[in-house]
Order: sequence, then C-alpha cells, then structure tokens
Amino acid sequence: MNDTAKAAETSENPEHSQGGTYSVKGKEFTRDTRYITTRITTDGRDGFTVEPGRYRLIAARACPWANRAIIVRRLLGLEDALSLGLAGPTHDARSWTFDLDPGGRDPVLGIERLQEAYFRRDPDYPRGITVPAIVDTTTGAVVTNDFAQITLDLSTQWRAHHREGAPDLLPAAHRDEIDAVDQRVFTEVNNGVYRCGFAGSQEAYDAAYERLWTALDWLEDRLGDRRYLVGDSITEADVRLFTTLVRFDPVYHGHFKCNRRKLTELPNLWAYARDLFQTPGFGDTVDFEQIKRHYYVVHSDINPGGIVPNGPDLSGWTTPHGREALGGRPFGDGTPPGPVSESERVDPGHTPLR
Amino acid sequence: MNDTAKAAETSENPEHSQGGTYSVKGKEFTRDTRYITTRITTDGRDGFTVEPGRYRLIAARACPWANRAIIVRRLLGLEDALSLGLAGPTHDARSWTFDLDPGGRDPVLGIERLQEAYFRRDPDYPRGITVPAIVDTTTGAVVTNDFAQITLDLSTQWRAHHREGAPDLLPAAHRDEIDAVDQRVFTEVNNGVYRCGFAGSQEAYDAAYERLWTALDWLEDRLGDRRYLVGDSITEADVRLFTTLVRFDPVYHGHFKCNRRKLTELPNLWAYARDLFQTPGFGDTVDFEQIKRHYYVVHSDINPGGIVPNGPDLSGWTTPHGREALGGRPFGDGTPPGPVSESERVDPGHTPLR
Repeated sequence: MNDTAKAAETSENPEHSQGGTYSVKGKEFTRDTRYITTRITTDGRDGFTVEPGRYRLIAARACPWANRAIIVRRLLGLEDALSLGLAGPTHDARSWTFDLDPGGRDPVLGIERLQEAYFRRDPDYPRGITVPAIVDTTTGAVVTNDFAQITLDLSTQWRAHHREGAPDLLPAAHRDEIDAVDQRVFTEVNNGVYRCGFAGSQEAYDAAYERLWTALDWLEDRLGDRRYLVGDSITEADVRLFTTLVRFDPVYHGHFKCNRRKLTELPNLWAYARDLFQTPGFGDTVDFEQIKRHYYVVHSDINPGGIVPNGPDLSGWTTPHGREALGGRPFGDGTPPGPVSESERVDPGHTPLR
Repeated sequence: MNDTAKAAETSENPEHSQGGTYSVKGKEFTRDTRYITTRITTDGRDGFTVEPGRYRLIAARACPWANRAIIVRRLLGLEDALSLGLAGPTHDARSWTFDLDPGGRDPVLGIERLQEAYFRRDPDYPRGITVPAIVDTTTGAVVTNDFAQITLDLSTQWRAHHREGAPDLLPAAHRDEIDAVDQRVFTEVNNGVYRCGFAGSQEAYDAAYERLWTALDWLEDRLGDRRYLVGDSITEADVRLFTTLVRFDPVYHGHFKCNRRKLTELPNLWAYARDLFQTPGFGDTVDFEQIKRHYYVVHSDINPGGIVPNGPDLSGWTTPHGREALGGRPFGDGTPPGPVSESERVDPGHTPLR
C-alpha cells in the first residue's frame, strides 16, 4: 500500500490525511476544498437516494468538521435512519482508523481504515481521507465527504426521517443570512484557526492571527444582544461556530497559537458557547480527551514530543450562562432531542465535568 | 570551535546552553545546578572584593533567572556600582550573544559571545553558558553565574553601595521564612514550569503539571490575605516569584503546556503580579517581546516552526489591582527607586501597554 501512503502524504489537505507534516515552510496554509460532491437526495439525482438504513456516517469525535454532522444528525433525530461509525482520535499518514471498535474494524463496514471505503469509490483516490464521510453500506464505498453539503442535506433531503419535533436548522426566512454568516465563519474562524496553526512563516501567521481576531471581535459584538447567530433559534450557523469554539481553549489557543485571549476571556462568545454546550445535542457529542489527543498527537510537526496538555480546566462549561435573558427559543417550534442512546454516549471520563 | 558547540550541546542545563534540544525523550527534565559558586564579597574571601565599577552584570531581558538580578540591582540602586550588559533574546548552540549592541559586541567587555568570558575563566568550561553572570572587567573572566547567590549578595555584600532609601529585601526577622518560600517556589514553580515544558514523556509531564499546580494553588491561597509573600513588604521572595509569573501567560501557559488556567484566571496571583508589575523596579525591567522571542525561537525542539505567537493581549497588566486594601508597605522603611536611566530603558514598543 505504498502508493496509498504516498497519495496521502502528498495531498494538499493537511488536516485529515497526512502523518505529521501540516505546515509548509514559508507558505500560508491552504485547505484543499476539492471533495467528493456526490449528494444523497430525495430524488436520487446523483444516483443515491435517501433510504433509511442504507448509509453510514463515518465521523470522529476529534474532528470539528465531523462534529457538525454528529450534532445535526442528533438534533434532527436521524440516528435510526443513518447509522454512525466513529474513527479513533489519532492516526498515521494513512489517516483515520477504527481502532476504537472491537477488533479494530468498523462493525458494519468491516474495514480497519477509512481509506478502504475511499478506494472502493476510486482505487486511485488522490486526495485526503477525511471525515465526515457517508458510505453506502450496500457497496462499502464512500458516497460523499463534502462536509459542508452533508449537514445541509441532512436538514433538507432527509426531512421524511426527522424525529417528531426536529428543529428547522435552515429556516427559509433566514437562509440568506445563514449562508452569509456561514461563509464568513468558515473562511475566518473554522478554517482561520488552522491558518494560524499551520502557517509556514511568521508573516503568514501574523496575517492569519489578524484575520481570525477580526472575525472573533465581530462575533463577540454580534452575540452581545442576540442569543443565536441568526434569528432567535438555533440554526446550522450555530452548529458550525460551536464546533470551533468548543475546541478553542483545549487546542487552538495553545497548539495553533490563537492566543490573544482564551474563549473564557470573551464574555459573549463564552456564554454563547456554554449555552449551546448545555443544550441537548451539542455538549453531549463532545469528547474533550479525543479532541486534545487528536491535535497534539497527529500534528507531530508542530508538537514533536506528542505530549498532550492536561489543561485547560473545563469546569466552566457547565456553569450558568445567563443567555436566557436574551430571549430566543432554542428549538423554535420544535423540541430538544432526547437522551443520547447508550451506544453513542461519550465516555464520561473524557469530559471531566458532566 | 567545534568542541565548544559540543560542550554546549551535551550540557545538562537545557535552558541557556543548547541550540534546539531541550527535552530528552522519555526523561524528566533535570536542571544542572552546578554553577560557578565563587562569590564577590565585602571581605574578598573568594578572591573577589566588592568594588564599585569593577564588575559587570551580564543579563538578558528574556531570562527569568537574569531578570531577578536586574530587578534587585534596580531596587537597591546599584546601577552606578555594577554596570549592566544585555545579551539578545535568541541564540544558537553557542548560547548568548551581544547582538543588540553596536557591532555585536558588549561595549565594555568587547566580546561577541558570553562564552568568551566563560572561557577566560576556564578554557575547558564544560557546562552551560548561562545568564546572569558577573564578569570581572579587569580580566574579562566570569566570576560567578550562581544566580541564586548573586541576588542575595547584591543585598548583603553590596550594602555600602545601595542607594539612599534602598529596601531591605532580606529582613533578618523574616529570613528563615523567605528561604523556605524561595525553596518551594524554586523547585515547584520557577523550575516547575520548565519541568512541564521539557518533559520527555507524557508521564513526566503529567507529574510535573500536578506538582506545578499544587504549588500554584498554595500560592493563590497564600496571597488571598497578604499583599506580599513574606511579611508586609517586598522581599527577595517576591522578586523570585514575579519573574516566573510575568512569563506565565506569554510563554509557560502555551509553550510549556502549563495550561490549567492562565495567570489572568487566578485572581490573587494575577492581582499580586500586577501590583508588583506596577511597582517601580519590576514592570520597567520586563520586555515581553524579548521574552516571547527567546522561548519560541530558541526551543526549536518544542516549537520547530519558530513562530512567535502574537498573543496574549497584555493590556491587563496596567489595570488597577486593588491590593492596597491588604495594607503592606511596598518598600518598608525605604523608598521606591527613581526612573530607569535612559540607557537601560526597555524599548516601549516591546511592552505594548505602558
């Protein structure tokens, strides 16, 4: 499988594919945004029709892009329609493995490495082996890894399988605003922290830091008088910001040098993040231990010793946030999701405070 | 000079001597505490008598151990009796250089590298080239680099040359308590942060982190109802804790993974540190830019990219601390030092808030 490893190593997508080399000397970090854009839709226009039980969402607790899909699936109550496979937090150059599963194999797909499902789709698959990915269990091949589209399609294409009381995460009345906020949050924050951490020169880092904090200042200000990013209920935009915020102090602040302030030192963003964390469907998907292990172990070029920090103290996440005073209806006309099923529960030892 | 570089590389003192290799895989960090213990005294018992104008203190703004000596010299008003040479913040395997001086040479000693003064003392000097060091300007040779003794001797042996109103940093009535506090602060805090940062295994790091935070909890508690560490005035003990605290958020929190909380999240220690920072003789010796550059550039094994973080926001250092409410007389029966002389002023661009 030498060419495989080589393909992974030469990919331009640093986050999910490579073993150890993430920043390129002298260069600004550029994310490879070429994904497999096949969609699973109600009308099956790309050859894949929505069918309960047919597809498997492969995610990893560690990964912020996959965390989005885990949250949305849970908010919408798609657990029974779309099963979930979880890769472990650390990996080598050949990317994500199912080392958390008995025998080191995904129990449904029967594979040890996620790349096997990518190669079933394309034996010469040349880019990063990323999560989230949705696999067709009838063929074992990846259908899509287009993380931005995946969550949108869970909302719009899988509607027939949503739970009773599922919220509308993409309300039509706010769709343009959600898209605009998502775009800025993606380029400046979700990806902005990586641009800081994988900067290959002081100049690239300085510029990345400036961009990130300009956006965080904007968000801190925006959230001063509104409970959620758009409208008065939780939307896709909140999901997308949350998965970066929850990783901010444990990882991005130190490991990626996004250190003007901690999240805990940004009053509105910190209260907003706690509010979401304490909302069913958000905090109960978060595994702080896996998050820290992933970044600090996998990015051996920026943390060669592989030591995983013990901090930060996470006890603040469960403290009162006071955001109810801003009004808002978290689930709009819907209801919160019920408890997490036993089989999908985060190891309580990994989130030291709940 | 190959053997020179080799001597430096194989030294056990990681902080000041080596170029790039500070943590040893699988090992706990152990500081080499074998210094040149010759003393400069009033009675000249070691062959070196206190004489104004004869000796030169070589320090570096970046280094916490040297920062102690800079602070004590200034609090006691020894500027005219003991001149000050400052090495730049970054260096290679051959250690500290005078790259900040015109022509890259110390204007008094005429040398480019501090190691030249060590080799005048001992051509085969086998250990780390460290600051602070006191050099005899009549021979150009290092007299002592015993940092712990240097500040004590500035207080006790150089008394005849102290300024009018110099504080007593080692009051006899409190000497035993000062020594006890100094000992615990040295092993657990001053050196404790290095034990975290240079840990060669997860186990060594975990143990170091635990020790550090046990001590910081003790200090946080101790400073809840007393303004200074010992007695009701500033002593040597405060100087020794301050130089670690002032580096905590800019360096130790992220670079050394001492990240349970920031200093700004420890209310008593943070107010205590600000109180000292705002006291003449403390904050006016601190160069945050040199501090950050030193650690992030010199320790290339733990920060291979050499990127220096832009954070943290340092504006809090000049905010009111409210510690006057605890009483205390900062300088006891003495007075604060006057303004820093023009030639020794920290570049105002390097401390972004004063």
